[in-house]
Amino acid sequence: LVCNANTTQAVTDICVASARVAAGAGTEIVGVTAPFGPAIIATRAENAIAGHAVLATLAEHAAGTDAAVLAVSYDTALEAARQLMPFPVVGMTEAACLTACLVGGRFGLVTFSSAELYRERIAQYGLAARLAGIRVVSATPMDMASDPHRVDALVAEAAAALAVDGADAVLLGGAALAGADKRVDTAVPLIDGIAAGVRMAEMLVRLGLPRARSGSYAAPQGRETEGLSPALARLLLGG
Amino acid sequence: LVCNANTTQAVTDICVASARVAAGAGTEIVGVTAPFGPAIIATRAENAIAGHAVLATLAEHAAGTDAAVLAVSYDTALEAARQLMPFPVVGMTEAACLTACLVGGRFGLVTFSSAELYRERIAQYGLAARLAGIRVVSATPMDMASDPHRVDALVAEAAAALAVDGADAVLLGGAALAGADKRVDTAVPLIDGIAAGVRMAEMLVRLGLPRARSGSYAAPQGRETEGLSPALARLLLGG
Amino acid sequence: LVCNANTTQAVTDICVASARVAAGAGTEIVGVTAPFGPAIIATRAENAIAGHAVLATLAEHAAGTDAAVLAVSYDTALEAARQLMPFPVVGMTEAACLTACLVGGRFGLVTFSSAELYRERIAQYGLAARLAGIRVVSATPMDMASDPHRVDALVAEAAAALAVDGADAVLLGGAALAGADKRVDTAVPLIDGIAAGVRMAEMLVRLGLPRARSGSYAAPQGRETEGLSPALARLLLGG
Amino acid sequence: LVCNANTTQAVTDICVASARVAAGAGTEIVGVTAPFGPAIIATRAENAIAGHAVLATLAEHAAGTDAAVLAVSYDTALEAARQLMPFPVVGMTEAACLTACLVGGRFGLVTFSSAELYRERIAQYGLAARLAGIRVVSATPMDMASDPHRVDALVAEAAAALAVDGADAVLLGGAALAGADKRVDTAVPLIDGIAAGVRMAEMLVRLGLPRARSGSYAAPQGRETEGLSPALARLLLGG
Amino acid sequence: LVCNANTTQAVTDICVASARVAAGAGTEIVGVTAPFGPAIIATRAENAIAGHAVLATLAEHAAGTDAAVLAVSYDTALEAARQLMPFPVVGMTEAACLTACLVGGRFGLVTFSSAELYRERIAQYGLAARLAGIRVVSATPMDMASDPHRVDALVAEAAAALAVDGADAVLLGGAALAGADKRVDTAVPLIDGIAAGVRMAEMLVRLGLPRARSGSYAAPQGRETEGLSPALARLLLGG
Amino acid sequence: LVCNANTTQAVTDICVASARVAAGAGTEIVGVTAPFGPAIIATRAENAIAGHAVLATLAEHAAGTDAAVLAVSYDTALEAARQLMPFPVVGMTEAACLTACLVGGRFGLVTFSSAELYRERIAQYGLAARLAGIRVVSATPMDMASDPHRVDALVAEAAAALAVDGADAVLLGGAALAGADKRVDTAVPLIDGIAAGVRMAEMLVRLGLPRARSGSYAAPQGRETEGLSPALARLLLGG
Repeated sequence: LVCNANTTQAVTDICVASARVAAGAGTEIVGVTAPFGPAIIATRAENAIAGHAVLATLAEHAAGTDAAVLAVSYDTALEAARQLMPFPVVGMTEAACLTACLVGGRFGLVTFSSAELYRERIAQYGLAARLAGIRVVSATPMDMASDPHRVDALVAEAAAALAVDGADAVLLGGAALAGADKRVDTAVPLIDGIAAGVRMAEMLVRLGLPRARSGSYAAPQGRETEGLSPALARLLLGG
Repeated sequence: LVCNANTTQAVTDICVASARVAAGAGTEIVGVTAPFGPAIIATRAENAIAGHAVLATLAEHAAGTDAAVLAVSYDTALEAARQLMPFPVVGMTEAACLTACLVGGRFGLVTFSSAELYRERIAQYGLAARLAGIRVVSATPMDMASDPHRVDALVAEAAAALAVDGADAVLLGGAALAGADKRVDTAVPLIDGIAAGVRMAEMLVRLGLPRARSGSYAAPQGRETEGLSPALARLLLGG
Repeated sequence: LVCNANTTQAVTDICVASARVAAGAGTEIVGVTAPFGPAIIATRAENAIAGHAVLATLAEHAAGTDAAVLAVSYDTALEAARQLMPFPVVGMTEAACLTACLVGGRFGLVTFSSAELYRERIAQYGLAARLAGIRVVSATPMDMASDPHRVDALVAEAAAALAVDGADAVLLGGAALAGADKRVDTAVPLIDGIAAGVRMAEMLVRLGLPRARSGSYAAPQGRETEGLSPALARLLLGG
Repeated sequence: LVCNANTTQAVTDICVASARVAAGAGTEIVGVTAPFGPAIIATRAENAIAGHAVLATLAEHAAGTDAAVLAVSYDTALEAARQLMPFPVVGMTEAACLTACLVGGRFGLVTFSSAELYRERIAQYGLAARLAGIRVVSATPMDMASDPHRVDALVAEAAAALAVDGADAVLLGGAALAGADKRVDTAVPLIDGIAAGVRMAEMLVRLGLPRARSGSYAAPQGRETEGLSPALARLLLGG
Repeated sequence: LVCNANTTQAVTDICVASARVAAGAGTEIVGVTAPFGPAIIATRAENAIAGHAVLATLAEHAAGTDAAVLAVSYDTALEAARQLMPFPVVGMTEAACLTACLVGGRFGLVTFSSAELYRERIAQYGLAARLAGIRVVSATPMDMASDPHRVDALVAEAAAALAVDGADAVLLGGAALAGADKRVDTAVPLIDGIAAGVRMAEMLVRLGLPRARSGSYAAPQGRETEGLSPALARLLLGG
Repeated sequence: LVCNANTTQAVTDICVASARVAAGAGTEIVGVTAPFGPAIIATRAENAIAGHAVLATLAEHAAGTDAAVLAVSYDTALEAARQLMPFPVVGMTEAACLTACLVGGRFGLVTFSSAELYRERIAQYGLAARLAGIRVVSATPMDMASDPHRVDALVAEAAAALAVDGADAVLLGGAALAGADKRVDTAVPLIDGIAAGVRMAEMLVRLGLPRARSGSYAAPQGRETEGLSPALARLLLGG
């Protein structure tokens, strides 16, 4: 399950396409789009609202799902989803960070949007010491469609600067940059979060770890709610 | 505005009562309750869902509000509310942490519920180095009503242990412990989050700082959404 | 009580004027000046000497005081004063830092003087992770009097640069910059330490927390001394 | 390639058996044993010597290898191997740590041997903040063979204590505990490093990231040596 | 110069005796006692006052001094003294910490007095990650004189517990424990701060590094003061 | 004993010359060169291999040695040597870092080679917070011989920039820069690792601390090995 926390179907389509390229034989990719919330998450407020949307969307499509990848830059509601869902959930930025840890020392990140939200998220993962830097390129997702060459050049320049700052790998932040790793030649590897997320999710499915029965990641039991979707309310009630 | 992120009106009533005791002359306390979401937030998934509820509730009651206090243990969606609202927003645990910083070196926390969510929240505030420890007391909010003496004794014991561990002040985690600071005599001060939050909110109103016009706390502009309450959607669109 | 740790009366006057503007109705501001020590604290050695002067000054004026604000950049002897005095004591830089934490994520600082002493002080508060940067402007307190426009322009430039580096608020370091927040228009709020300190002190007085009876902030008892002022010696003896 | 940094063939056999259970269809597991060095690495000095042995062993068997897993508690010479080898290299403890990050917040570790070397290694990965604790069980690898029930009981007890301390998953430290995750029932998942390492290695092979051409993980070029095995000397010379 | 920041001559005598035992041939030890301030520094307020006394004492005896060791637990005003004095200054706890770093990984500390002040000081040195723990023994400096066997037994017990917690060396905190390293047999070395301080000071004298001419450790120039001792005022004026 | 971890005799000669200049009267300097391994250590892989060479070399020359200094930039196998050898072992970069801590707040480092390996090593010492920055100069050890004036100018420029960034002292990274501290005049002291290492080693010999009998630095006992030099194997077996 590739879960787009935005309500924009076009983003889902891009992510699903990326995911299909990355996925192993035998992995079926299903894309789902948040039914309510921000069109595109770019600010703190939108990210908080989308947390609810992510959980509602995952709950709706939980049946038959083996694992989910959150296709959203800031890994919205990742820990909550991990607690609530009966299957592994992986964030695209989290997966890219952990992959970067597996190939080098420190890593950098290139993005169109807010560096601060990325910085905070990476610090929450306890990985601040492995972050060599974040570069914001002066472009928008629209430029990506209209003038991909310019965007690619900006990404290449940012990646080169991050390598000088000590990055052994560079994360592509956000779905908008998906595919740049295939087009841009850089001295250090570029890591696409969707590809890394799909591969990490497959890895967890194969590892088959049991779910925690205690602690803050144990499935909720008997939690009562009001006004939530039936699927979401049911998961919180447990059984 | 005292904003209860849970849907349980009884919790709002307790918090409002606490807030009125704490508030200065000239401060009017208005309590609001989330219209949807968890009855009582105790887990990661509930906390993520309540983020949306907090923002929707604040948006609904924004008119005429001078400042808001989030009456919820984990300061749910605090940063998002701070970005979105045209007035200061303070979290009860955040306010208690910062107050503790003003009276001593390290602080402890006593709670009924998950230590890990508190630990993570305090680390997000960058205050991990000032946390002397967290003690979970073996009691429930129900015990608080039925046998307050037992709960008070447990709080006193936990606070004493935290003082030995180096805490110069002890935070009462969650609305359920509100008022214990008035009843329990301890060697180090107990800090009630609602009281601290109300006082911090008054402080910010009086200081009258302008809002950031750049960065990740600047008010959103032109952010489009789907399926949100009109008040919330309007704030994201800006103007 | 606004306690100037320097012996320069003119600095006290500036700080008292700032404090009066910031103070709430019903708050009486009294300025006191250190009777011995450095004219202006700018180095490590001066700061250490001034620690004694701060405590002696506070002890002298303790009677009838409800709270004190240390009007000195490096919050000289703050923790010691907090332990010794029977009323709340707030540092101007500490108060500005905590206020910045209440309005955004990371903060910056603009100053005329040593960045390293600020950096160390902020790290001692456990807030290194929330510091986006420090900018030293090429000006002196004298320039502030002779050519305030140039200084204001430098402050505006530094604040803009700090906002780009991720600061959501910018602290004005030192009494010399007091008032710049009223004159300079910046994209992120400027925080004046005296104003924040006065408001935080009012907040603590209203909160009325009891004093710690154990730990390193408990009032001293029976500590013998030689050659100190009678008021200071008496506080250390306790009783 | 499962590379045992010890010279003890029996350990290789155990690790290869574990690896084969964990490996996906299509993954061929080949075990290799260090030709010189410590029989069993348990101390700092042995670990340093084994660094050379690991690189020599990998160099010897590099041809035809798609990825390597270091079957040694302290991930001996992992970063060096990652720089030198033309294929992905994964450490068993590193893989277990990153897997634990994917299923919960903080993790614990159970081991027979030195807690300090694990603590330092995890800190080198930048993951100190996600370590809930380390428990050393009073048993030896010999006990594992002679009285597995006692060892399993000790592991269960240690894992339960770590869960109370806030661990959402518990790592089995060292090859000697391999398989305990299958026999012991615990409230939080036990993670076997060999299994996690094999799965992570498969993941990296599938992801197919290019090698860094700059920075401290770029392949060595023209580095001259004396007295090393021909295969190792050749890799350092590059080509 | 062994500088006792307390006014108690008996403490100076003990420290000088320790220093003479530790000193190399050719090193002349001169003891000086603060002329004003606390009899024995045990609290934050006393420590702040003693900062002034340390600088005044060093200034008085600067002529003919090659290096100074601060004989006071919390290394009172160490950084200030280092800036002000034309010779190397070493703190006894600082020297013990750095020596511990030279013989093992993490270290512990045994003390009669406040653990928090030690913890903060070690964190200021940036060495928090190398501190395995602090144990406060239930004894007073008086017990040391009347019943040294009991104190030695408590120190031995505390050191053993710290070794179990991962300490490779244990610091004796404060002058009162001086000499215990000679009497108590422990599994990890005990480090006496006076001995370490004297040896580190000799080391710095022999190394003969020039003084910094820029930054916050450069000697003060033209700093005006009021009411300070002539020697101290002269050093601040520079020349 | 000055132990060069490279196999290049010329480097040993330079280091021994530096060490003799730095050493006190009565200290005899003996230089030894690794019998196998990299000619010059510059990468991760070479550093790992040299760990074995360092231990083998020290073991060979242990008899009659009072202390050893590792004459290699990254303090290769320092902790292992410290555990294994019956005398103090000091790393040249470690000694320079600790010396810098004794003369100022933060320090910088100038080097010809990889900044990342230095950064990681300093972080392993727990001193990341005291590192103001690392500057890589565009020169090679060869330039040092052919055009020392150019190299000196680059070092001076880098040191000046580090001082502006807050460094109170600057470390000369690597044996290639030895002696630059004597030729280049800078505003903050330059610290040569060989000189600092020799002085620190003398200090430890004079302090005469006993060896740890427990923990991860205790001497190995009964550790069996294969294919190692007799001297090294004997030390691991203990006795």
